[in-house]
Amino acid sequence: MSGQIIITAFERSPDGGQGLARDTRVRWALEEAGQPYEVRLVSFKAMKEPAHLALHPFGQIPTYEEGSLALFETGAIVFHIAERHAGLLPDDASARARAITWMFAAVNTVEPPILELANARLLEGNKPWSKERLPLVEGRVRDRLKQLSAHLGTADWLDGAFSAADLMMVSVLLRLRSSGLLDEHQTLAAYVARGEARPAYKRAFADQLAVNKPPAG
Amino acid sequence: MSGQIIITAFERSPDGGQGLARDTRVRWALEEAGQPYEVRLVSFKAMKEPAHLALHPFGQIPTYEEGSLALFETGAIVFHIAERHAGLLPDDASARARAITWMFAAVNTVEPPILELANARLLEGNKPWSKERLPLVEGRVRDRLKQLSAHLGTADWLDGAFSAADLMMVSVLLRLRSSGLLDEHQTLAAYVARGEARPAYKRAFADQLAVNKPPAG
Repeated sequence: MSGQIIITAFERSPDGGQGLARDTRVRWALEEAGQPYEVRLVSFKAMKEPAHLALHPFGQIPTYEEGSLALFETGAIVFHIAERHAGLLPDDASARARAITWMFAAVNTVEPPILELANARLLEGNKPWSKERLPLVEGRVRDRLKQLSAHLGTADWLDGAFSAADLMMVSVLLRLRSSGLLDEHQTLAAYVARGEARPAYKRAFADQLAVNKPPAG
Repeated sequence: MSGQIIITAFERSPDGGQGLARDTRVRWALEEAGQPYEVRLVSFKAMKEPAHLALHPFGQIPTYEEGSLALFETGAIVFHIAERHAGLLPDDASARARAITWMFAAVNTVEPPILELANARLLEGNKPWSKERLPLVEGRVRDRLKQLSAHLGTADWLDGAFSAADLMMVSVLLRLRSSGLLDEHQTLAAYVARGEARPAYKRAFADQLAVNKPPAG
């Protein structure tokens, strides 16, 4: 497994460059690891065509190619990078297992209610039930934030030093910024800000913005 | 990291022993790996108390203890077991990375719409919008099943031999059985049946059933 790293990203991200598309998570991991990479942009149309589906059976971005290896699924790509380069997973076996625990917690415990909230807004925002239902969905997100905030307490990161777990959790939480829910927990707002302040995140953010920036008028 | 393995499970599973509680996934992995384990049952009340929250910040089951190591989050526990014992992850580095990709795909791409469907039924089944909204949520699940079925094709497992990826994906799909959606894809119904036919799954299922079986009348 060696060779030029190529990832895919939206030709035009639905968020207009807010950094919420999942290629930002992979860009961030590669920046933390100091690994150069190329980006191949794909259109919404091309994402559903056979060439892309061969790389990503669910027709999404990002994908990751490295020589003959082809991966999809952001969590797995970040883990692959973290396993091979210093700085994203602790060396100690128990600490490493706990960091992996938090990576899965980010995508399987914290992100699902956040995805549900996004669906409620984007896919069902014009439905007659939207106004009455939204507080229920927000409540499910709030439950998770409260528990996460209680765990974090006064710590800078989820478990000791910054790791791929924080990269994933901060990225998941960033999706909440526009909802205002994140700011209900100063602990979590500060945690996310610490993630965004990392030079590697800033480079990743700037690089995705350069693709998605609205043309100058 | 060595010592007796102890997992937690519901004192009384909400599904009454259908095997859908997430301890079944961990039991299955431990059975595939041939590892003995103890089970500590926890009540809904105890799950939200400090002793359990110290093990699992989100107040859920299962947890995993092994000597001084304490983990939560099913995907991470299954991965921890798979890394340490033969039979759940391929030796080849690229095949291993692809298996991990499918583990994340199970919990972050396929399971979220299934969780949303479960919420629509269990938490919102009595809401005025329930009947009109359910087909929308089912549509999101169907999209994923169609893509997954197209990927699987005539293969027995997701990528070569059975792995922790199949253990996770079959477990996620099992949650759909009562909805009837799974049976819309013969490919996926047969895939899930192959998982259930494994001796290790059968032992895991029987062991969780022994805890949850309704008392004989």
